[in-house]
Amino acid sequence: MKKASIVSIGNEVLSGQTIDTNAAYLSQKLLSIGIPVISSYTIGDDIEAIVRALNSAGTDAEVVLATGGLGPTDDDLARQAFAEFLGAELQLQAELLEKIRVFFTGRGLQMPEKNRIQAYIPAGTKALANNLGTAPGIMAQMKGKLFIALPGVPSEAMQMYEESVLPELLRLPGREAVFVRKLKCFGAGESTIAEMLGPIMQRGRNPQINCTVEFGVITLHIVATAQNEDKARQMAEKDEKSLRRTLGELIYGTGEQTLAEVVGEELARQRKTLAVTESCTGGCLAKQLTDIPGASRYFTCGWVTYSNTAKISELDVPADLIEQYGAVSEQVAHAMAWGARNKARTDFAIGITGIAGPTGGTEQKPVGLVYICVDSDSECEVKRCLFTHDREFIRLRAAQTALNMLLLKLNG
Amino acid sequence: MKKASIVSIGNEVLSGQTIDTNAAYLSQKLLSIGIPVISSYTIGDDIEAIVRALNSAGTDAEVVLATGGLGPTDDDLARQAFAEFLGAELQLQAELLEKIRVFFTGRGLQMPEKNRIQAYIPAGTKALANNLGTAPGIMAQMKGKLFIALPGVPSEAMQMYEESVLPELLRLPGREAVFVRKLKCFGAGESTIAEMLGPIMQRGRNPQINCTVEFGVITLHIVATAQNEDKARQMAEKDEKSLRRTLGELIYGTGEQTLAEVVGEELARQRKTLAVTESCTGGCLAKQLTDIPGASRYFTCGWVTYSNTAKISELDVPADLIEQYGAVSEQVAHAMAWGARNKARTDFAIGITGIAGPTGGTEQKPVGLVYICVDSDSECEVKRCLFTHDREFIRLRAAQTALNMLLLKLNG
Repeated sequence: MKKASIVSIGNEVLSGQTIDTNAAYLSQKLLSIGIPVISSYTIGDDIEAIVRALNSAGTDAEVVLATGGLGPTDDDLARQAFAEFLGAELQLQAELLEKIRVFFTGRGLQMPEKNRIQAYIPAGTKALANNLGTAPGIMAQMKGKLFIALPGVPSEAMQMYEESVLPELLRLPGREAVFVRKLKCFGAGESTIAEMLGPIMQRGRNPQINCTVEFGVITLHIVATAQNEDKARQMAEKDEKSLRRTLGELIYGTGEQTLAEVVGEELARQRKTLAVTESCTGGCLAKQLTDIPGASRYFTCGWVTYSNTAKISELDVPADLIEQYGAVSEQVAHAMAWGARNKARTDFAIGITGIAGPTGGTEQKPVGLVYICVDSDSECEVKRCLFTHDREFIRLRAAQTALNMLLLKLNG
Repeated sequence: MKKASIVSIGNEVLSGQTIDTNAAYLSQKLLSIGIPVISSYTIGDDIEAIVRALNSAGTDAEVVLATGGLGPTDDDLARQAFAEFLGAELQLQAELLEKIRVFFTGRGLQMPEKNRIQAYIPAGTKALANNLGTAPGIMAQMKGKLFIALPGVPSEAMQMYEESVLPELLRLPGREAVFVRKLKCFGAGESTIAEMLGPIMQRGRNPQINCTVEFGVITLHIVATAQNEDKARQMAEKDEKSLRRTLGELIYGTGEQTLAEVVGEELARQRKTLAVTESCTGGCLAKQLTDIPGASRYFTCGWVTYSNTAKISELDVPADLIEQYGAVSEQVAHAMAWGARNKARTDFAIGITGIAGPTGGTEQKPVGLVYICVDSDSECEVKRCLFTHDREFIRLRAAQTALNMLLLKLNG
C-alpha cells in the first residue's frame, strides 16, 4: 500500500498563529483514496529545514505533499528548497510568467515585480495550475517517489489537490480502497465503550476501529481497507451492525451528526415541539438547538432564567419550592420544565438547573451538580448528574445530556 | 537561545479526524517565554514512529514536548515509546495508581481495569499531575535535554503545561526574555487595522506585531524580545500606548478577554443589570454572557423568542407590529428589548432579530440581515447589520456586535 507524508511550511504555522488546516484536509482526502498519511512535518521558512523535512518525508513514504512557501515574498522558500532537494536549477517558465501577469491584468492591476519569482520552478519538474491565485504548484519525481509543492492558502491548496494532484494519485499502481464510517455515541466513557467492544478494537485489525472523544461525544471511526470500494464499504457496514448490536442506544447518530441535529430531525419527523428553560447552562442548550437550520419547525421558545426572580416571574416556579429545596433541586428542575411547557404549549420541555462553578458549590450541592428534567404530557423524568472538569465542560455536558434524554424518549 | 520541538501523537490527528490545537497552543506559550518552536512532528499510534520522531525532535531542539498517546486504550503508546526511547523499563507507581483509583471512586465509579496501565511510567522519570483526567504526564532528562509527554485532551494538556511544565522551563538557563502583550479589537477588519497601524507592523521589527483574527475579533500580539523581562515588558508597553492612541475604542480588552467578559466587568463595576432576548442568535448571546463565572451579578434573565408567538406572549411585542414590519425589523428588535427590560426590570436589555440562514432570506431582507437593539432608561439604539459568511458566523457576529454596542454605551 502506498503511503504519504505531509510537510507544512511556514513560520506562522510553526508559531501557532495559524492553525494548519491543510494537513488535516489532505490527510482525510488521501485516506479516502487509500493512501494513509503516516507522518507529518511542520517547519519554518528555512531552506535547510525544508530540505531536511523533504528527506525525512521521502524516507517515510512514497507520496510527499508540501504546503506553503510558494508566495512572492522573501520568506517564501519552498521553490528554492525543492530545487536544492532535487539537485536542479530554478528556471523561469515563460508561460507561467504570462499566466501570473494575466492574473493581475485581468483584475485591472499591474503585476508587482515581486511576483516574477513565482514563475520559476526547478528544471525537470511540472508546474501545477493555480486558478485562484498566483502561486503555481510543483510536481517532481525522484527515485520513483512523488514530491508535490502546494500553496499554503487553504482554498488554493484544496483546489490544486482536487484538480491536479488527485488525478495523478489515482493513476498510481497498487492503491487500495478505503471506506470510513463514523458512529457517534453518547452516554458512556471511552474506556467503558472500549471494554464493551473488546477485541474488535484491536490494532492491526481490518477494519480498524479508532475512537475519538469531544465533550462527552465519542466517535467510533470504522476504517475499512479493501481492493475496491464496494468491498471496503461492505466490511465497514458489517462492523457497523456488530457495533450497533453491542452499543445499542449509546449510538445516537452517524457521520458528523450532533445530538441537537438528531433530536431536531426526530422532533420534526414526529411533528412534536420543544421549549427549554436553562439556569446554569445559560443558553447553551438553546444555542445548540438553534445551531441547526430550520430549528423553528420544532423549537419555539427558550428561557434563560438565571436569577430566582426570573424563575418565579417568568415560569411560575413557586417561590416556596425554591426556598424549601433550593434553586438547584429536582423539584425546581421539574417546576421550570413544567412552567416552560405550559407557557409555550409545546409537547416537550427541558428544564436545567445546576452549579457550573467554579464557585458556588457546597458539600451537599457541589460544583458540577445538575438536575435535568424532560417533561411531556405523558411523563416527567428528572435526572441528577454530577459532572466534572471545568465550567465550560459542565455546561456543555449538561446540555448534551438533556438532548440525549429527550432523544431516548423520542425513540421510545 | 533554547529551542523547542513538538511531537503530536495519534492516528486521529494524523488522519485529520482531529485538528491539532495542542501544537498551536504550545507554540504560542513557548514563544511567549522566549523558546521558539522550530519543528513539529505528527505521527500515528506506532511505537517505532514515535521513537523516531523523539530522536529527530531531540536533534532539532533542547526541549521536546509530546502530546497524546497517554490514554488507557491499546492504541495509546506514548508511555512505551518513551520507555524505549529512554532505554528504561515501565514501572508501576503505586501513588499514581491510587490517584487514578480515587479519580473514579470520587465520582462513584469503579476504576476500569484498562486504566491501570496509566499508572506506569518509565523508570527514572517524573510523573506530572493531571487534575482533570486520569493520564499523568511524563518528564524525562536525556543528554541535557528535556523530554515531556502530555495528554492529548486539550484541556488536560493546557492545565499540565501551566502547572508542571512552565515552572520547569522558566528555570532553564540561557533564555532570552520575551514579553507578549495581546490587544483585543472589535469593530474593524484586519486590513483596515493594518492600514491604520502602518509601518509599526513591519516584519523583523522588535517588538514584532502579529495579527490574528477569529470571528471578527482581531488580536494584536505585541512580541518584544530583550535581555531581560523588564526591558521586554517596557518595549511592549510603549508599543501598546502607541497602538491605543491609533485604534482608540476599537480596542476593547487585553490578553484572552472576551467581549462578554469586559462587558460583564463593566456592568458589575457600575452595578447595572442586563436582560437579553434573542431570535436568530437563539441563545448565543446568553451563552456568551453566562460563560463568565459570576455572571449572575448582572445577568438576570434571557429569552430565546424563536417563534412570533413567543415574542408576543412572552415579551408583549404587539402582534400588529410584527404584521406591519415583519419579525426582522428595527421596530420588533426594539419592542423585544423593551419587553425584556420591562419584564426583567433591568437597567439594560438587548434585543436581536435577524435571518441567520442558510434559507429564509428575501431580496429586501437577505440572509445576514440582523437588527440589534440596546435599550436603557435613558436611550435606545437600534443597529441594522448585514453580516456575511455562514449561519454560525452570522449568529456569532450578531452576538459580538450586540456586546460591543453595550460596551461603548457603558464606556460613555
